[in-house]
Amino acid sequence: MALKILVLGADGYCGWAACLHLSAQGHEVVASDNYVRRDTWDHYRLRSCATGIAGANEPLYPVRPVHERLSTWEKVSGRRVSFVSAELENYEEVAALLDATRPDTVVHFAEQRSAPFSNLSPQHALETLKNNTFSTYNLLEAISRVDPRIHLVKLGTMGEYGYTPHENFIEEGSIDFPKRPASPYHMTKCMDSIALEMMRRIYQLRVTDLHQGVVYGATTAETAMDRDLHNRFDYDGVWGTVINRFCVQALAGTPLTIYGAGGQSRGIISLQDAVQCIELAILHPAKPGEMVVRNQITEILSVQAIARHVAAACERLEIRCEAHHCYNPRLENEGHDLKVRFGGFTTLGLVPRTLEDTLVESDLPFLAKFKDDIRLDLLSNQTLADWRKRDA
Amino acid sequence: MALKILVLGADGYCGWAACLHLSAQGHEVVASDNYVRRDTWDHYRLRSCATGIAGANEPLYPVRPVHERLSTWEKVSGRRVSFVSAELENYEEVAALLDATRPDTVVHFAEQRSAPFSNLSPQHALETLKNNTFSTYNLLEAISRVDPRIHLVKLGTMGEYGYTPHENFIEEGSIDFPKRPASPYHMTKCMDSIALEMMRRIYQLRVTDLHQGVVYGATTAETAMDRDLHNRFDYDGVWGTVINRFCVQALAGTPLTIYGAGGQSRGIISLQDAVQCIELAILHPAKPGEMVVRNQITEILSVQAIARHVAAACERLEIRCEAHHCYNPRLENEGHDLKVRFGGFTTLGLVPRTLEDTLVESDLPFLAKFKDDIRLDLLSNQTLADWRKRDA
Repeated sequence: MALKILVLGADGYCGWAACLHLSAQGHEVVASDNYVRRDTWDHYRLRSCATGIAGANEPLYPVRPVHERLSTWEKVSGRRVSFVSAELENYEEVAALLDATRPDTVVHFAEQRSAPFSNLSPQHALETLKNNTFSTYNLLEAISRVDPRIHLVKLGTMGEYGYTPHENFIEEGSIDFPKRPASPYHMTKCMDSIALEMMRRIYQLRVTDLHQGVVYGATTAETAMDRDLHNRFDYDGVWGTVINRFCVQALAGTPLTIYGAGGQSRGIISLQDAVQCIELAILHPAKPGEMVVRNQITEILSVQAIARHVAAACERLEIRCEAHHCYNPRLENEGHDLKVRFGGFTTLGLVPRTLEDTLVESDLPFLAKFKDDIRLDLLSNQTLADWRKRDA
Repeated sequence: MALKILVLGADGYCGWAACLHLSAQGHEVVASDNYVRRDTWDHYRLRSCATGIAGANEPLYPVRPVHERLSTWEKVSGRRVSFVSAELENYEEVAALLDATRPDTVVHFAEQRSAPFSNLSPQHALETLKNNTFSTYNLLEAISRVDPRIHLVKLGTMGEYGYTPHENFIEEGSIDFPKRPASPYHMTKCMDSIALEMMRRIYQLRVTDLHQGVVYGATTAETAMDRDLHNRFDYDGVWGTVINRFCVQALAGTPLTIYGAGGQSRGIISLQDAVQCIELAILHPAKPGEMVVRNQITEILSVQAIARHVAAACERLEIRCEAHHCYNPRLENEGHDLKVRFGGFTTLGLVPRTLEDTLVESDLPFLAKFKDDIRLDLLSNQTLADWRKRDA
């Protein structure tokens, strides 16, 4: 079944990969972004970051603007994806975008997605609050007025439940499980969930909230097809996530940096599996008035176990690799379990791959090509705001 | 025990009454407001309201600016309350305000407090989202950095649990009771609660969230002392709340308008009792890291019962009064019970008065003086946005 799908945040890490994957599956995809990440946020952090590191953040390899990459995609695949620039903080633009495109599904990846970014200063926190809650609320309002049948698929996070979650199992589908966010970023995701729940109830909207875990990996089948289709890949202390940073650290010949004891557990998922989950969520939409919560993870591992798996993958590829324990800027229990049910996507057809196999088969060989471009200053933990003593 | 108390939103209905009450009790009060309600919101609603009613909203009688009223207060009581204008959406202003005043307690009344206002248009919803979540988040950030010992007393609402609440009793102190907001305004209060819970946990802040019910009444002992100390009193369809509107309808000789069947239950509290609760909450602060939730209501009545009590009070004062059932713009169960525990303030010393006695002894005689100033156009339900079919 081919659908018309509007992907918001199409210039981002997940958004771009999802655009191509959905297009490759035969859906009619419209991509949208406002480039705030490229134009502002990549530089912005340096303005109030106390560390004084010079120069903006940059991904491991250059990433061309979306509309240029879409021309390449059309040449490579024969499939056309159109691009519309839109500012989601502005209600009129959101309503006009939906009215012009009339999609079956909107996938909302267009949020500020870094917890460390949101912790850099009160201004970064407020920017995150504004960007995330305004975009989600505007989408819900616009859908309720333009066409309440549009299915909204929204990127949430497992982190809504906190770094040291409740002792009960986090079930799939639970709206009322206690929320314990631990950064302004996570707080905004909890706030979004409140808006999603309310608007689906009042206006009978169809809402899917994907509680995604930590995503890792650099490529998907589609982004690997051409040099000009590559996905954004970050490894700095603000935008890089744990597994991606470990991979780059290993390739740079520096130790993997485990925050604290490393016993803290995380739900993880590869980018390749994530884009498949997104299509599955789209193909199995929420009913009118329903809010479907899906736990989008494929493995639960402690940070220490993640480091072991990265090291094992490196060993299979003959890359030397060691790990280090270092200061943990997060206020968290460093030896906690994470009890989450996450069988839903497998039931829908996902065949997840393991961390180690994914790294060996795709990501480490791919990233190794850019080994000489790694900037050690971006790998430094010094770029991370201290969550615990930031007012010192 | 005299404390230094910063009252935010001091020009508003509850804020002004609280300022004078706290000052009368011997506390050192600093009042603050940005006048957005007077300067913008009272007019704003007419810009995008579809009803086309001309002229801005205005309270029943003129209310002088805070700093002028505070001069009167000093003459009448001999007590000085200072005034500082501040924009709470701006973090720097909030931090500077706290740094300059160094209060023991901040009472945050400075939110957009009307559900109908938030429903008038997507822009009104977004304005509410911005004003409320930004001000609360900025306060929490500023307290964590300026002085984490400052006790924050924040006005929440019983409406976080929805108009047709859960069948379980809403206990006092519960942080995780399921939230079911039914307007953008209520949604922002739920979002605020998420921020309060997170920031008290991470930075060991002291937070009290007052889940206030519908407040009624025009005066307190202090505001009644002089014509120039009067409290703002609204009775229009956007800012007026049910009991205050019923009182004005009775005095105008028009029927009390009961939305729908009138079996929907509400927790209520008089302004006189509310200001006492606020002092009690201040005198019994949350401990570091604690979020105290207090249910600030004194009676639970259905809308129909409220109309009966207003009618009974009118009869005792020989005011003719009848009630009407009319179209309900809210999406709600019109025959629901409300199970809320609310003994906490009585335990702390509150001696609540009943609706009927309060109206007979203070509010109806006071309001009767302004009978000839009542604008029937403001009493009309036509000014209310239709919550159910607003996109028609």
